[in-house]
Amino acid sequence: MSIAEQAKNAKTASDILANSSIEQRNSALFAIAEMLENNMDSILEENKKDLDRAQNSPMLDRLMLDEARILAIADAARKITTLPDILGTVDRMWQRPNGLKIGQQRVPLGLVGIIYEARPNVTIDAAVLCIKSGNACLLRGGSDALHSNLELVRLMKLALQKVGLPDQAVEIIADPSRESAMKMMKLNQYLDVLIPRGGSGLIKSVVENSTVPVIETGSGNCHTYIDEFADLEMGLNILLNAKTQRPSVCNACESLVVHAKVAADFLPMLEKKSGHLELRGDERTRKLISCLPATEKDFYTEYNDMILSIKIVDSLDEAISHINEHSTKHSETIVTKDYNNSQKFLQRINSAAVYVNASTRFTDGFEFGFGAEIGISTQKLHARGPMGLSALTTTKYIIYGNGQIRES
Amino acid sequence: MSIAEQAKNAKTASDILANSSIEQRNSALFAIAEMLENNMDSILEENKKDLDRAQNSPMLDRLMLDEARILAIADAARKITTLPDILGTVDRMWQRPNGLKIGQQRVPLGLVGIIYEARPNVTIDAAVLCIKSGNACLLRGGSDALHSNLELVRLMKLALQKVGLPDQAVEIIADPSRESAMKMMKLNQYLDVLIPRGGSGLIKSVVENSTVPVIETGSGNCHTYIDEFADLEMGLNILLNAKTQRPSVCNACESLVVHAKVAADFLPMLEKKSGHLELRGDERTRKLISCLPATEKDFYTEYNDMILSIKIVDSLDEAISHINEHSTKHSETIVTKDYNNSQKFLQRINSAAVYVNASTRFTDGFEFGFGAEIGISTQKLHARGPMGLSALTTTKYIIYGNGQIRES
Repeated sequence: MSIAEQAKNAKTASDILANSSIEQRNSALFAIAEMLENNMDSILEENKKDLDRAQNSPMLDRLMLDEARILAIADAARKITTLPDILGTVDRMWQRPNGLKIGQQRVPLGLVGIIYEARPNVTIDAAVLCIKSGNACLLRGGSDALHSNLELVRLMKLALQKVGLPDQAVEIIADPSRESAMKMMKLNQYLDVLIPRGGSGLIKSVVENSTVPVIETGSGNCHTYIDEFADLEMGLNILLNAKTQRPSVCNACESLVVHAKVAADFLPMLEKKSGHLELRGDERTRKLISCLPATEKDFYTEYNDMILSIKIVDSLDEAISHINEHSTKHSETIVTKDYNNSQKFLQRINSAAVYVNASTRFTDGFEFGFGAEIGISTQKLHARGPMGLSALTTTKYIIYGNGQIRES
Repeated sequence: MSIAEQAKNAKTASDILANSSIEQRNSALFAIAEMLENNMDSILEENKKDLDRAQNSPMLDRLMLDEARILAIADAARKITTLPDILGTVDRMWQRPNGLKIGQQRVPLGLVGIIYEARPNVTIDAAVLCIKSGNACLLRGGSDALHSNLELVRLMKLALQKVGLPDQAVEIIADPSRESAMKMMKLNQYLDVLIPRGGSGLIKSVVENSTVPVIETGSGNCHTYIDEFADLEMGLNILLNAKTQRPSVCNACESLVVHAKVAADFLPMLEKKSGHLELRGDERTRKLISCLPATEKDFYTEYNDMILSIKIVDSLDEAISHINEHSTKHSETIVTKDYNNSQKFLQRINSAAVYVNASTRFTDGFEFGFGAEIGISTQKLHARGPMGLSALTTTKYIIYGNGQIRES
């Protein structure tokens, strides 16, 4: 079957999903969880084919499934059933002077395309969130995980059939070539949105080539700013958490900005606790502590590693300018006891999530209380910041009249 | 100055706009209105150059400015000052178990690109809405209106200077070539969104070529469905209003769908009142009234003219399928006295605005009560349906903590 035919079928299925009950959609998720648990052997067998091909690749750990991981994926699917149904919610409704009642109701996007790299768990996670929110999905995973992905989709289709929903609601592209991805990016007739999940190369390619609207999930060059009025102990605690608790993720801190008035106190505290953390400082920093030099390039870099760049500033304004210039507009935090400085930082920093006195690591759908996460959007259109199920919906206006016509 | 330089300057200005007070932004709109009124002569002189070049073009009326039109444009700018400021609004705020307070605050998109055709009034309208909502704009109008547009932007820049806002907040591309438009569509570094306003050719070109996120404003192949339980007098009233009150606009009705059980009563009523309206019916319609044949192509056509296609169906389900298949997902209405049919139509029709017992002509930012309109979005991402000022904003999360760090 061609990719366009798969997309067409999935689009047809999306209409049935959009009008299904939440009981049906939740029972599909339960059936998927059960299907995964009852078919460990076939999943592991297909996964082994992928692992054999990928021998010695650094991807191996991301690619690998075992019983514990499959149980965790099934468990995550079951947890999504406990979230409330978002469809049908009327965000607001008002009446016009002519008596028209206008409401704005949540409806699914329709057919969601997802392009991702070699992580088979994304295959289940993404499909489950789409089904829960009444969307069909067209998946295109990385070639490294192809055997695993095809088996996982086969099982999800069986689960959908079991509960009486169309199995075309979850389609996967079996050809993981560059050409298939390019074809997918031009399927405006069927695809309502395309979400790339993976490294910056993948995301850049999708943004540049897709004519389908894209939700860009992106990189995080996140900053911690230690204000002149900071509680320095709290600042160190927040900085080390944001930097080192899980350095490989997008909401980890990459750069410290510190006010000159407290730098001489704060930087030695940091140096003492830095452990395996590599510090790279600007010229003024290196007069206070011993560390490697930070170049302008460092300040633009998302290390995703145990490295921290350090910049000393003379004012909050300079800190804000520096951060707005170098950040990827993901998450930034100020540590301060000063009320006006906290408000100014919140107002002037142009990022998806702006914190006062807390770690940037909280930028996450679960930590925000959404109960799920599709990704973290660093674009401004449609959704910005952590995306929960509502990012997979749009709205339509429903208008109740009693014969109104327009006069002018 | 290159287009990229203009965009860069406008982006810098957007940061100042985003942090300006509503008094400043409103005073800019007053200053623009005054500047237009005080410079009628120079505007009309530049407009005459455009008119002279465009002689005998069908565009002439859209291109033409006169005193009355300029006063109306100035008046519209003043009216926008009466709308409330949307910036800073916190849509919702909640507290997490760890004490973090998370709020979602409205902020401007940043730099808005607008590509439009030969209507000089759009130059002012678009810029005014951007300024009101704290955005800078980069305009690219049609070549036919170039002299008018350059003069209007010159005057707006003077108005911005007068109130102490950066005049780079409104930039216009002086080269109206295809190449300049293509360059603009790739300015991802500076442009946050691109809104095409014009015919379907323009919109298609932007959707296909832009790497900047696009808000698609689009065409309307709108339907009126006369249910078997319709009040036929009301149905005729609504249909004729939707079709004939202003046939050239996107929310005008293009196609009548009528239930077979009432077709023999309804269609002769329509025929009698049709006047200059050209009717094109399917085979069953032509057994009931005399009219031209409607082909499958007719049912996909947005006439924007005094032509109506007619389809007879045997059930509400058939009506819904026919409409979802042929519509452009803009606006559709059902005329019915039956409660369940009204609910089913609202739920199942997949369009931006779905009506019960009212004319589709109400799909409009002013009629919806938004006080302004950027356009009517027929895409599902970011904004769907009539767009008011909020469509020119995004949100950022503001998070108040007191030392929270993430444990896992």
